[in-house]
Amino acid sequence: MASDTILLDHGAGGRASHELVGRIFAGRFSNPLLDPLDDAAVLTPPPGRLSISTDTFVVDPVVFPGGNIGSLAVHGTVNDVCMRGAKPLWLTVGFVLEEGLSIALLTTIVESMARAATEAGVVIVAGDTKVVGRGQADKIFINTCGIGVIPEGLDLGAHLARPGDAVLVSGSMGDHGVTILAQREGLNLDAPLKSDSASLNGLVADLLAACDGVHVLRDPTRGGLATTLNEIAATSRVAIELQEGAIPVDPVVQGVCELLGLDPFYLANEGKLICIVQGGQAQAALTALRAHPLGGNAAIIGQVKEAPAGRVWMHTRVGGGRILDMLSGEPLPRIC
Amino acid sequence: MASDTILLDHGAGGRASHELVGRIFAGRFSNPLLDPLDDAAVLTPPPGRLSISTDTFVVDPVVFPGGNIGSLAVHGTVNDVCMRGAKPLWLTVGFVLEEGLSIALLTTIVESMARAATEAGVVIVAGDTKVVGRGQADKIFINTCGIGVIPEGLDLGAHLARPGDAVLVSGSMGDHGVTILAQREGLNLDAPLKSDSASLNGLVADLLAACDGVHVLRDPTRGGLATTLNEIAATSRVAIELQEGAIPVDPVVQGVCELLGLDPFYLANEGKLICIVQGGQAQAALTALRAHPLGGNAAIIGQVKEAPAGRVWMHTRVGGGRILDMLSGEPLPRIC
Repeated sequence: MASDTILLDHGAGGRASHELVGRIFAGRFSNPLLDPLDDAAVLTPPPGRLSISTDTFVVDPVVFPGGNIGSLAVHGTVNDVCMRGAKPLWLTVGFVLEEGLSIALLTTIVESMARAATEAGVVIVAGDTKVVGRGQADKIFINTCGIGVIPEGLDLGAHLARPGDAVLVSGSMGDHGVTILAQREGLNLDAPLKSDSASLNGLVADLLAACDGVHVLRDPTRGGLATTLNEIAATSRVAIELQEGAIPVDPVVQGVCELLGLDPFYLANEGKLICIVQGGQAQAALTALRAHPLGGNAAIIGQVKEAPAGRVWMHTRVGGGRILDMLSGEPLPRIC
Repeated sequence: MASDTILLDHGAGGRASHELVGRIFAGRFSNPLLDPLDDAAVLTPPPGRLSISTDTFVVDPVVFPGGNIGSLAVHGTVNDVCMRGAKPLWLTVGFVLEEGLSIALLTTIVESMARAATEAGVVIVAGDTKVVGRGQADKIFINTCGIGVIPEGLDLGAHLARPGDAVLVSGSMGDHGVTILAQREGLNLDAPLKSDSASLNGLVADLLAACDGVHVLRDPTRGGLATTLNEIAATSRVAIELQEGAIPVDPVVQGVCELLGLDPFYLANEGKLICIVQGGQAQAALTALRAHPLGGNAAIIGQVKEAPAGRVWMHTRVGGGRILDMLSGEPLPRIC
């Protein structure tokens, strides 16, 4: 009889490993590139440069409102790949499973991954599964590596912000981070909190089709908006000035942040992007973002200045101003 | 003052994460593709099909005679990529670190990775680091994803073994597995045991240059020679017949296997390959393998037959015969 939990044997590379792959992974991830289950997949890339990114997902809890570690592992890497303007094509997947993990939970996670991959139009081409003993991992960790192809002539990067550029976000800040933290604290809220976890490649494609002056795309995940903007300001050697009142934050998120003592500008997003675009194209970019289901709350939140290079400054709602520094202080572990 | 162990803060995506990346990873892995540290790396692939593979390494202990989890994470993925005949080009790296991991140990591991990558001629193009709390992982897990380019006209795969082909191995079986298990058992041996962990791309290149009739290359890692040959026999729908006396096993490995009740044909190798080649080219393949420093003990160990399809049969040293089945039974967890 098949076990209903993960056993050490499932990771030993023998018959039990093959049965696990056959029972849980092979059918749900099936495609002609993966199906041979050889040491490596063989792919024919379309012409163009490739964009490649990797992330390991260790989010706790593994299931949360709006998704689970499986869908997140697809969305997170798809998003990193398309922030360089690429069309994501292929994913590899590496699982670390803790002995005793429920097969039912693993199946839910794998089904979410398969659905998220199909929705994003990416194909899972290679995978690996390891099992470690009880107490040697926490349920499940998932690594994904993503590869996409960059259209000819497109060049986006964190080093390309220029004075005069406009800074936009595609929607409200902090939804994913606050959802995970509220879940972990066991908060029972009347108002629903939900992770924004989603694949942004469709939004990026629409934006780039509408607007040829995009210089930087980044998704503000760990460390949130503030940390990501600091990275851009440092890499591009520019200053960034924000209008606090223009930055969209969901009122429920704002309320829970106040309750938990958190700042939404430092919380992870998993379905939002920052877009830095030539000043004259700010409205065109905004219109393109808002026309997409994932960009309805997009906003112009600030602009790029020449100096002081590397600094992010925020004009606050009450008329003052403050430096918005990188995340430092209380760590928020296992947010993604 | 910088901490001498990993803190949760090192994985939070803020200032401490940046400092860790700057202090441990950036300099040692430095190359023009990685250095921008953007969401994704941008690569220009040479013409040809790509070979792509991923593996997560969870070996316990993390340091062992002949290597550590860092060098192993490079060798293992380089080898999977080149088993399809590819020249490995790029690696991505994803770390999961346990809070409290010694920075000195992490540095040793990262230095081994950097050295192994340089020796194999591959470039680390993207990376990610996550930190989980004490007891939520065991020290360090490393995922690598590798990409290589396959020369025009070359087609190797586990489905391509044909009756009449010869079966070769590039050296002695079981060295890695027995080294890890002996280490874990705390065996103190006079005779030195050492993992065979090594990148095989140079050996593969020499073999393919010498011999155009290679049909299958596989590295017998988890599950060992027996399991890998069963996979090939099943995928190619052929029988494989081995001569036990022809299969090289180091006498020290054989001795420790007898002591621990292990079979070297089921133990992992991390620097050996199985080569299935057109029968008439068996000697040419053997000569090419033996001419390389990593193939000195290469041997012709058997041949491919038509039937019974899917079965691996071994003529034993004492003149009998037995089916060599896939690994099943006692699991050997965390061997790689």
